[in-house]
Amino acid sequence: MSNLIKIGICGWGNVATGLYKQLSTNNNLDLNFEITCIGARRDNPKCDPSPIKIHRDIFDVIDDDIDVLIELIGGVEVAKDLIERALASGKHVVTANKAVIFEHGKELIALADQYNVKLLFESAVCAGTPIIKMLSNDLQANEVSKIAGMLNGTTNYILSKMEEGESYEQTLKNAQELGYAEPDPSLDVNGTDAAHKIGILSSLAFNSSLPVHGFHIEGIEQITQSDFIFAREFGFVVKHLAVAKKTAHGVELRSHPTLLKSSSNLASLKGVRNGIQIDTDLLGEFHIAGSGAGQESTASGIISDLISLSRTENSSSMNMPEFTNAVKIIPFTELSFRYYIYLEVKDKSGVLAKVTKIFADQNISFDKVSQKEQLSDNKVPIIIISDPINELNMQNALKEARCHEEILDLKIIRIED
Amino acid sequence: MSNLIKIGICGWGNVATGLYKQLSTNNNLDLNFEITCIGARRDNPKCDPSPIKIHRDIFDVIDDDIDVLIELIGGVEVAKDLIERALASGKHVVTANKAVIFEHGKELIALADQYNVKLLFESAVCAGTPIIKMLSNDLQANEVSKIAGMLNGTTNYILSKMEEGESYEQTLKNAQELGYAEPDPSLDVNGTDAAHKIGILSSLAFNSSLPVHGFHIEGIEQITQSDFIFAREFGFVVKHLAVAKKTAHGVELRSHPTLLKSSSNLASLKGVRNGIQIDTDLLGEFHIAGSGAGQESTASGIISDLISLSRTENSSSMNMPEFTNAVKIIPFTELSFRYYIYLEVKDKSGVLAKVTKIFADQNISFDKVSQKEQLSDNKVPIIIISDPINELNMQNALKEARCHEEILDLKIIRIED
Repeated sequence: MSNLIKIGICGWGNVATGLYKQLSTNNNLDLNFEITCIGARRDNPKCDPSPIKIHRDIFDVIDDDIDVLIELIGGVEVAKDLIERALASGKHVVTANKAVIFEHGKELIALADQYNVKLLFESAVCAGTPIIKMLSNDLQANEVSKIAGMLNGTTNYILSKMEEGESYEQTLKNAQELGYAEPDPSLDVNGTDAAHKIGILSSLAFNSSLPVHGFHIEGIEQITQSDFIFAREFGFVVKHLAVAKKTAHGVELRSHPTLLKSSSNLASLKGVRNGIQIDTDLLGEFHIAGSGAGQESTASGIISDLISLSRTENSSSMNMPEFTNAVKIIPFTELSFRYYIYLEVKDKSGVLAKVTKIFADQNISFDKVSQKEQLSDNKVPIIIISDPINELNMQNALKEARCHEEILDLKIIRIED
Repeated sequence: MSNLIKIGICGWGNVATGLYKQLSTNNNLDLNFEITCIGARRDNPKCDPSPIKIHRDIFDVIDDDIDVLIELIGGVEVAKDLIERALASGKHVVTANKAVIFEHGKELIALADQYNVKLLFESAVCAGTPIIKMLSNDLQANEVSKIAGMLNGTTNYILSKMEEGESYEQTLKNAQELGYAEPDPSLDVNGTDAAHKIGILSSLAFNSSLPVHGFHIEGIEQITQSDFIFAREFGFVVKHLAVAKKTAHGVELRSHPTLLKSSSNLASLKGVRNGIQIDTDLLGEFHIAGSGAGQESTASGIISDLISLSRTENSSSMNMPEFTNAVKIIPFTELSFRYYIYLEVKDKSGVLAKVTKIFADQNISFDKVSQKEQLSDNKVPIIIISDPINELNMQNALKEARCHEEILDLKIIRIED
């Protein structure tokens, strides 16, 4: 690549116009570039890039005089097709698209290798927070044993507000009004977005194969105000965590709500932020936290990829992950946790004994039990913190408990120790 | 440089033998290297590197068949001489020596440029925590406005233990026994070590000249148990912070104890750790935290420098800082803070009025005042949290207050908002 980088941008939504703005106005950039063309099916009333050439067929960007194609169209299938054709035409590709990297990262990187070009995706995970480059470069001397992250900004925003006393519904509505949450927020709040991200991070850290399917994914839809209040009594806060952990038996992968000790570093992160803890052999426990979404943060990550390309005159000297090693995902039921168990039972004698027996039958012992004041309708909440136990035993106990009419409501949150 | 990197290590203490151990045993390394020779004035009974060649005159390492010299002898003058001669002989240099970079980084990097080789120093600041590479590479699109860090692991360890109830003296003694603190810990606890580090970081972030002298440096020697107890009442913890902040009037640079809000992210970091907050235009508030000292963490940083060198076949395509722009350090007395003021006064009528007047005469107003129970000897502690005021006014008030015999003890800690 010459020192001047010629750029084609595909997609013309929020992220693309934010990037365009940064490239046009940022005076700090140690980057010699020109935007050759933009691929946009329609104009964006918020941003006029003239006199830059516009292609209405985004695939025409590939054949223009560009060194790098920046893929910002989102989605999976068309994006994959676009990236493939660009790489096969000898163009580098920078993308912010986590879904396409999660599903097709392995084959796309192999393709880039084949054509001696690069596929970079810093902003696909936690936007501009430089977690991809850190795992690929700066921590190379380290063996990573665990990554645990609050990887979805919307989810963390909602949980932070609930911690302050707001309801789930109200907070979600506010988040949508503020633009933090999509009109359809389901991929954010149901744990899928965080699952894609931890899948990519685990593959980088453990050099393991993508995509990874069949691991436990759970969202925050069932978390209520009272969980925060009860968790606090035991010194915990409620967060959503995605975890990848290397063990002798394979890789533990999961994305679900957790209780974290209030004094822990991740617990202190509030608002639309991402926080990641990485445990390594040499650096010990390592943290990184930053804004995980938004136009500007995403632009920062894309530009850092462009700078990497511009500094690496011989592209073969820059490292890309391989995502090749087959990896054994440990079945979720084989894992162990301590649990926060929330029960609502009928207020009559003998119920606590019955509940206790259901769990005891599954060898589940309790660290702490706290019976709360009666709610309306003759319901009594009981909070249990269990000892460490096997997930399968817990699932069996839940199945059994749900058959008893005295148990009106039942929910667990896993504790991350 | 060829793909095989030939390494000469100068110095044979803890860090050097730790690096040797990692290079010899770490199977994760994406690095093709050989250790050609070691420069060591004497053997280290803890580590026998045979059959690797040993030079008793460390300067002979330069003339051996090496691509990179790793400087681990410490100190300033001899280290500077060694680095200069290595660069002038066309050898890359990797160093973990913050003092030599702080004092002579500017001229040494200019020399490296002149001879078309590299001088890398990831482990000079916060050991393996990749803060140098982040500021030099990953955050390049960002304009950094502020860096605030707990940059000395020993200091953070001592303050964490004091937060738990131990005395300064006892904690320092324990830290020395555990090997966290040097037999002479003065550079750690008096703020100098953190000052060197923030000097280097600020120069990287603001591309400003090194060395920077004449900024405010203060240690933790005056902090007592009761400061933690009183700070907690107002929702604060005591930490030592080094700060670099860019303003319209110049750069604010300082290294001193501070009160941080208990709920803040930096406040939650305990033990021998480093934590850094970076405020930027695109990424917003960004955090990184990790082990800031120790053999293994330092080895991780040095190896990441070696990997950078090995991946950059044409060394001119790798960025080094310049440290060239002259920078105006804002005089400390022109800054403003809120203050925690600790007073011990004689328990007699009219003293509080007198104290109040001294501060009022300097236009210092109070946000909160709390008079505590009398100590032995007729002493009464008074804790004041001030409104934001000018440092010069505060210094004038302190000078005046110290002339009054009713004021038996007096101390301030600045609040970092």
